[in-house]
Amino acid sequence: MAGLFITFEGGDGAGKSTQAERLGAWLEQRGHETVRTREPGGTALGASLRELLLHGSDVAPRAEALLYAADRAQHVAEVVRPALARGAVVVQDRYIDSSLAYQGAGRPLDPAEVRGLSEWASGGLWPALTVLLDVSPELAAERRSAAGAAADRLEREAAEFHRRVRDGFLALANAEPERFLVLDAALPIEELHAAIAARVEPLLG
Amino acid sequence: MAGLFITFEGGDGAGKSTQAERLGAWLEQRGHETVRTREPGGTALGASLRELLLHGSDVAPRAEALLYAADRAQHVAEVVRPALARGAVVVQDRYIDSSLAYQGAGRPLDPAEVRGLSEWASGGLWPALTVLLDVSPELAAERRSAAGAAADRLEREAAEFHRRVRDGFLALANAEPERFLVLDAALPIEELHAAIAARVEPLLG
Repeated sequence: MAGLFITFEGGDGAGKSTQAERLGAWLEQRGHETVRTREPGGTALGASLRELLLHGSDVAPRAEALLYAADRAQHVAEVVRPALARGAVVVQDRYIDSSLAYQGAGRPLDPAEVRGLSEWASGGLWPALTVLLDVSPELAAERRSAAGAAADRLEREAAEFHRRVRDGFLALANAEPERFLVLDAALPIEELHAAIAARVEPLLG
Repeated sequence: MAGLFITFEGGDGAGKSTQAERLGAWLEQRGHETVRTREPGGTALGASLRELLLHGSDVAPRAEALLYAADRAQHVAEVVRPALARGAVVVQDRYIDSSLAYQGAGRPLDPAEVRGLSEWASGGLWPALTVLLDVSPELAAERRSAAGAAADRLEREAAEFHRRVRDGFLALANAEPERFLVLDAALPIEELHAAIAARVEPLLG
């Protein structure tokens, strides 16, 4: 593969889109063809699957995992691999690590099996760099509160769920320190961008 | 599982639906709760996926396999397992063997991996009996011709594809003779039904 594959991970509200956009603009200013994309929903098929997953009727846990994997297989084949083959930098919101962190946090599935599905779907394609924007429980609660969620039993369950997702992301980063750049999502936008650009620069051809 | 799970397999035009209906009526006459169903498309989610698979844009081979597996996971969880748990007989058009025969005949995927996907999707649920209605190349060509297909290059390619699907089904039946009942789809409808009922009768509680 001639290109460079970079993913952004982290809980909702971590600032992934903001940082991905800033990085994309920085790369293009330096003359690198950049493809900004996301999962789920980065293809026409994926957009239909995203609708099914978000607005459809009840989906069984294994069916849900398989639909996310199908979205991934289509996206990697149609968008990511062709872009990398022509030498582009792919900057993507969410990838395999999200499946692992969210499945591990809430679904009754074996994490090794979920990893196997994702690896089969992608043909074993892993990013060269994954930026994890780590959201502390305090910041996450503050942002959920700002978004209008009530502090009731559902909210406490949500807090517990987000804590498990965060722990899942941090465990993945600990297991692969070379691939991950872990940053505190509470830092100022420009400071985060500078740290990300400094890590990306030596990876560029 | 208290119930009985029976699947019908074979190429297009083999008469699966006709025989499944006849068997279902025979079972109900004898007082057995019977659930007639099919894959793909046996649930609300599955119907949406079937639309995507048949009428959507190009789908990558791994994405296609994962969508069929998602349809299976949902169908087994929502329809098949609950019916078996309450003691019903499930009579189903197409199941794992179709995935294996069609993938093996035409898609660039490892059959062992496709089998692994299906087994994970279904949680390892296999039918007690699979009726394979075997369509000879001559009968298949005749039925395609009756359906109006032209005898051109595409038609010859189609014949070769259907031959590989048939060989795939027969190889599956040879590997598991206890599970399979193989019948010549060219036999009269009543003769086929009598053979199927005779095989099903000792399986009933």
